[in-house]
Amino acid sequence: MRRHIYLKMKSLEEAKEIFFQQFDFTNFLKSEKIPTEASLGRITAKPIFSKLSSPYFHGAAMDGFAIKAEDTFGAKEDAPKRLKIGDKAFPINTGQPLPRDTNAVVMIEDVLEEGGYIEIRKAVYPWQNVRKVGEDIVATELIIPQNHKITAYDISALLEGGIFDVVVKERPRVIIIPTGDELVPIERAYSLKSGKVIESNSWMLKALLEEAGAICEKWPIVPDKYEIIYQTLKEAVEADAHLVIILAGSSAGSHDYTASALKELGEVFVHGIAMMPGKPTILAKVNNRPVVGNPGYPVSAAISFEQVILPLLSHMQGTFYERRKRINVIPSCPLPSKLGIDEFLRVKLGKVGENFIATPLPRAAGAITTLTRAHGIIIIPSNKEGIAEDEQVEAELLVPEEEIANNLVIIGSHDLTIDLLATEVRRIDPFLSISSSNVGSLGGILALKKGKAHLATSHLFDPDTGTYNLTYIDKYLKGMPVKVINLVIRHQGLIIPRGNPKHIKGLEDLTRSDITFINRQRGAGTRVLLDYKLGLLGIEPSQIRGYEDEEFSHMAVAVDVLSGRADVGLGIYAAAKALSLDFIPIAKEEYDIIIPEPFLEDRKVKILLEAVNSNEFKKKVLEMGGYEITKTGMVKS
Amino acid sequence: MRRHIYLKMKSLEEAKEIFFQQFDFTNFLKSEKIPTEASLGRITAKPIFSKLSSPYFHGAAMDGFAIKAEDTFGAKEDAPKRLKIGDKAFPINTGQPLPRDTNAVVMIEDVLEEGGYIEIRKAVYPWQNVRKVGEDIVATELIIPQNHKITAYDISALLEGGIFDVVVKERPRVIIIPTGDELVPIERAYSLKSGKVIESNSWMLKALLEEAGAICEKWPIVPDKYEIIYQTLKEAVEADAHLVIILAGSSAGSHDYTASALKELGEVFVHGIAMMPGKPTILAKVNNRPVVGNPGYPVSAAISFEQVILPLLSHMQGTFYERRKRINVIPSCPLPSKLGIDEFLRVKLGKVGENFIATPLPRAAGAITTLTRAHGIIIIPSNKEGIAEDEQVEAELLVPEEEIANNLVIIGSHDLTIDLLATEVRRIDPFLSISSSNVGSLGGILALKKGKAHLATSHLFDPDTGTYNLTYIDKYLKGMPVKVINLVIRHQGLIIPRGNPKHIKGLEDLTRSDITFINRQRGAGTRVLLDYKLGLLGIEPSQIRGYEDEEFSHMAVAVDVLSGRADVGLGIYAAAKALSLDFIPIAKEEYDIIIPEPFLEDRKVKILLEAVNSNEFKKKVLEMGGYEITKTGMVKS
Repeated sequence: MRRHIYLKMKSLEEAKEIFFQQFDFTNFLKSEKIPTEASLGRITAKPIFSKLSSPYFHGAAMDGFAIKAEDTFGAKEDAPKRLKIGDKAFPINTGQPLPRDTNAVVMIEDVLEEGGYIEIRKAVYPWQNVRKVGEDIVATELIIPQNHKITAYDISALLEGGIFDVVVKERPRVIIIPTGDELVPIERAYSLKSGKVIESNSWMLKALLEEAGAICEKWPIVPDKYEIIYQTLKEAVEADAHLVIILAGSSAGSHDYTASALKELGEVFVHGIAMMPGKPTILAKVNNRPVVGNPGYPVSAAISFEQVILPLLSHMQGTFYERRKRINVIPSCPLPSKLGIDEFLRVKLGKVGENFIATPLPRAAGAITTLTRAHGIIIIPSNKEGIAEDEQVEAELLVPEEEIANNLVIIGSHDLTIDLLATEVRRIDPFLSISSSNVGSLGGILALKKGKAHLATSHLFDPDTGTYNLTYIDKYLKGMPVKVINLVIRHQGLIIPRGNPKHIKGLEDLTRSDITFINRQRGAGTRVLLDYKLGLLGIEPSQIRGYEDEEFSHMAVAVDVLSGRADVGLGIYAAAKALSLDFIPIAKEEYDIIIPEPFLEDRKVKILLEAVNSNEFKKKVLEMGGYEITKTGMVKS
Repeated sequence: MRRHIYLKMKSLEEAKEIFFQQFDFTNFLKSEKIPTEASLGRITAKPIFSKLSSPYFHGAAMDGFAIKAEDTFGAKEDAPKRLKIGDKAFPINTGQPLPRDTNAVVMIEDVLEEGGYIEIRKAVYPWQNVRKVGEDIVATELIIPQNHKITAYDISALLEGGIFDVVVKERPRVIIIPTGDELVPIERAYSLKSGKVIESNSWMLKALLEEAGAICEKWPIVPDKYEIIYQTLKEAVEADAHLVIILAGSSAGSHDYTASALKELGEVFVHGIAMMPGKPTILAKVNNRPVVGNPGYPVSAAISFEQVILPLLSHMQGTFYERRKRINVIPSCPLPSKLGIDEFLRVKLGKVGENFIATPLPRAAGAITTLTRAHGIIIIPSNKEGIAEDEQVEAELLVPEEEIANNLVIIGSHDLTIDLLATEVRRIDPFLSISSSNVGSLGGILALKKGKAHLATSHLFDPDTGTYNLTYIDKYLKGMPVKVINLVIRHQGLIIPRGNPKHIKGLEDLTRSDITFINRQRGAGTRVLLDYKLGLLGIEPSQIRGYEDEEFSHMAVAVDVLSGRADVGLGIYAAAKALSLDFIPIAKEEYDIIIPEPFLEDRKVKILLEAVNSNEFKKKVLEMGGYEITKTGMVKS
C-alpha cells in the first residue's frame, strides 16, 4: 500500500506564486474574430479603435427649429427677430441632422410660431443645442483596450463606432477527468449501491468553469488504476486544451495515484496547500500546460477551484477575476481556527438590529450543504487562531445583500415545523427567508439576550411550576420585554428501529445493559424533559448506557438510531417518521417562540406570525403527525 | 405636429411601486422540468426535497482500519489491544463503506501493523472517524427552497440528494421592438448616411437581458408611423412573451407615438421618471402584461433598464436582483446635481494614497462611452443638490476592485501620446490601466496638491524664463517634492480645414473678419502659448473673432474645425492628422509629467516610467508625426 503524507504543504499565496510563474500565458490563448453583437463576456485580444465618429453628423439635441445663429444676433424681448419657416428656419426633432447652412437649434419652447414665421426673443449662439460630430466617439479613438471583458455597454459603443467584428481571445478549453472506483455517473445513479457515490463534483466544476467563461469537456470516470490514470492524463495533456483538471474521488489513501502519474509525466510543484477545506490540491505542469489535481470532497473541490483555478484562468486570459462583495459581520459564537491554515468558514447571515450576525455552518468538507446553505464565507487567515465572539470580521457574500436583510434569524431548539414555517413565510412573501440555528432551548434564550437573533424557539419544562419556558425567561431575560407565543404542542417519545427489535416499551428499558441510548445536549428542552421523567421513575443517568453521548437535533438522534449507533433516543415523532422509524409517545410539550418586543414591529416577524396563524401551516403541521395545534398562535405572555 | 410634455413625472420609487402593483406575478411564468446538471442559474418553481441521504452508507472519514470500537476498549500505551487483520480489522480508505460489524475507523497513524495484526494503544469510541448516513443530507430534507437561483454548488447537492431533474420557472421571454426612422440595422450599417444612426440599443439590451436570465426576441426596426407602431405593439402583446420593450429612437419629438399607441391599446401608468439619464421611460400594461418604453439615448436606455426592467424581471421571477458592490469615494471636484432628480453619474475611479478618487465623466446621455469608460456610478439622490468636493460618497462598481487599485490616475493637459502610453503600459503589465482626466496643465498641477492624482501632465510656458512647467511648479507646489520628466516635445500649430480654403498662413490671419477662431480654456498650456505668440505679434484678443469660445481638448478643437464651427484653432499636429485636417506649425513645446516623490515607489508609476523609456513607445510617438523624442524620459528636476 502506498500512502501519501503531505510533508511540505505550501501556503495558498506561495502555492499560487510558484505555480503561476511556471507558465508564459502571453499568446497562450489564440485569437478569433466574432460578430460584435455576440461578444458579450469575451476578452479582447487587442485594443479596439473606432472606425466611425459618433454622432457622425451634426444633429439636433432638442426639438425646435434649426436656424443660423447669426440670424438671431440682436434679438431681444422688445425687438424679436422673425425668420421664415422653410427659408431661414426648419422644424427639427432631436437626433435629426441640421439642414445645410444652419448651425444651431432654437428650442420649441423659446419661439412663437405665427403665419409661417417664427419669432425669436433671445439670441442663440452658434452650435447651441447641437450634438456635434464625434461628441461621443471620434474616429480612430480607442473604444476598449486589450484584455478587456466585453460588456453589454461596450457592444453598444463598438457598434456606434462602426466595429461589427471584434478580435477576442478564444475561450479557455478545460478537460475534467473524474477518478475513483467508488464513483457512479449520474446516468446510472438510480441503481446506487453501498460504497458507491454519485459523481457530482465534475458537474459542479463544469458549471463553475462555464460561469468563468471557459469551455469544458467532461471525460468519463477513470478507475483507481495507476496505468489508466497515467494514460488518461497523457491523452489529456496532448489534447487541444489549455487546462486539465483531474478530480480525486472522495477517497484519498492508497488509491491516490494522481500525484505519482503527474510526476512521471511532468513536474509537480505543489502537493497539498495549507488551507481548509481544499488541502489535497496538486499543481503540476505537463506538456507545458497546467494540470490541477482537485480534491474529492465537494466543499474542498469548490474552495480549491475558487482559490486556485479561478485566479489561474484570469491569469491565462489577462483579466481580473471579480472578488465577491464583502460586509462586516459579528459571529454568533467564537470561531476557533488552526494556526498555519487559511480557513474558509461557511456562515449564515442575518441582520439583527444594526448588526449582521454570522452563524457558522458545520466545517465538514464532505457536506456540500454547508456551501449551498451558506450566505457567506469568513476567511480566517493562517496567522489567526480564530475569531472572538465580539470581533468584527469580513464575510464574502454568496447571496445578494437583500437576501440577508430579508432573512429572519431564529436560534434555539430544533423542530421540523420551522421548515414548514419557512415554506409558508415564502408563500406569503417570496423574498423572505428563515435561517434557523440549532443551539437548544436555553442557548436560544441566551442568544436573544446578546441581540443575536430575531426570535428564539424553546420547549423548556419547569418541573416546579409545571409550565413551559416562562420561568426560564423570567430568570434569563430579566428586564427584557418579550412576547411568548405557542407554535405547536409536540409529542416527544422514544425513537426506535423499525419493528422494535429490542422490544423497548418505555423509559424503564433504558437501564437495560443491551440497550445503547443517544442523548441530546445539555440545555436542550428534550434533555430537561428526559431528566424530569427519569426522576419521576427514580432512574439515575449513570444507569443508562450512552447518556453522556450527545446530539444537537432530533434528526441527528433519529439518524443515530437508523444507523445503529444507538438503540433508542428521545425525540419528536416527525423525526422518527421521516426516517421510517418506530415511535413510543412519552409526553406532550409546548414548543414556543420568544420574540423581543422591538422586533414585533419588524415586517419579517409580522409575516412570520401571519404564517403561524395561517390555516395552511396548521394543516401541514397536523399532516406531519405527532403535533397538536390547539394553542398555535396563542400569546402566552 | 404632436408634442409630448412630461407634465407629471414620477419619482423612480413611486414609478416602480405604481407599475409593479398592476401585475400578479404568481404563476406568471410556467414551470418546466430540466436535467439538474443543466440547471445553472435557473429559478426553482417549488422547494426541492432530497430523495437520497448523503452519504447513504457509513463510510470511513480517514484512512486506516475499520474495527468494532468495543474491541478497543481498555487499550493503553502499556497494554495495547491486538486485532487480527481480515478478522477484526479491515484496511479501509477514506470514503469506503464500513464492513459488516464494524463501527469505527482507527487512523493509520495510530496503529502498529505487524505479522497480520494491528496494535492499538488508545481506545476508539463508536463511530469515531466515520461519516454516518445522512451526515450531509437526510432523505426528505429540503435541499433548496422555491424561488431560488440554482448555483453550481446546488447542482452538486441536488445530485447527491438523488435529484436528477428539477422543476424550474421558464425563462422570461422578452420582445424588443426598436423604433425610429433614423435607425439603420447593423446588417446595413456599412452604407450609413447623414441623419441615420446605427441601431445599437437593441443589441445592448439583448445582452443585458440575457445576462439577467431572460430570452430575447429582437424584432425588426419599426418606422415612426403611428399605425405601424400601434399594429406592431398589438402583435407583440398578443405573442407568447412575458414582457415587451419598445425602444424609442434617439429622436423624441413628434415622432414619439409610443405613449399614444399604448394608451389606445391599454393603460399607461408612468410617462417620464424623475431620473437622469433615463427620464423618457414609459410604463404600461396591455393585454395583462408589462410593456416598457425604453429611452433612445444609449445611456438613458441602459440606466432605465437597470433601474426599472431588472427589478421587474426579479419581481416576475420571485428573486432578488444582485446589487453591485459599493465603495466609498471622494470626488475629484464638486458634483452639482438638480434637486428632485435621481442622478446616475458615471465616474472614473483610482486609488491615490488611501482614497478612492472619483473623476466625473461627461453627463451626456447620448454618449455611451460615459458608461463604457466608467469604473463606477455615483447615485445622487433627488433630495440632494450635489456632492461637495470633500464629501465622501458611495459609488457602485462597474469593474472589479482590483482594476481600480491597478489604475493610474493622471490629471492635466490632454495629449494623444497618453493613449499610446496606456497601451504600452498594458503591454508591460496587462493588469495595469491609466485613466486620464483632462483639466488643462494648471488644473493638473493643482490636483496634485490636493492629493487627487498620481501624476500630472503639463506644458506651461513661462515667457519670463523661457522654460516649461518648472516656475509654475515652484509657485503652486511649494514645499511638495516632485520629479519632472519630459514625455515628448510637441509641435503646436494652426489646425485648418483640408486644402486650407481660407488661405491661412499664420497667426496674423486670425484677425481677419472672415475668420472664426476656436480657443482653448483658460489655464491650458496651449492658451498660454497662444497669448505669448500673440503678444510677440502685438495682436489683441479682442481683434480675434471666437477668442472667447473655449474647448477643453485638442481633439475638440480639431472637431470644431472639421465640422465648420470654426475656421482655425491652435492645437497639436496629431489631432489635425487624426481627422485629416491641415496643420501649420507655430511652435515646439515641452510636454512633461510631474510626479510627487512618494509615488515614485508605486509599482504603477515605475511601470509607466518603464513605458516612457521604451523604444516601442518612442517609435510610435514618431510615427504619429508632430512630435520629437530628443528629451523623452529625461529628468528635468
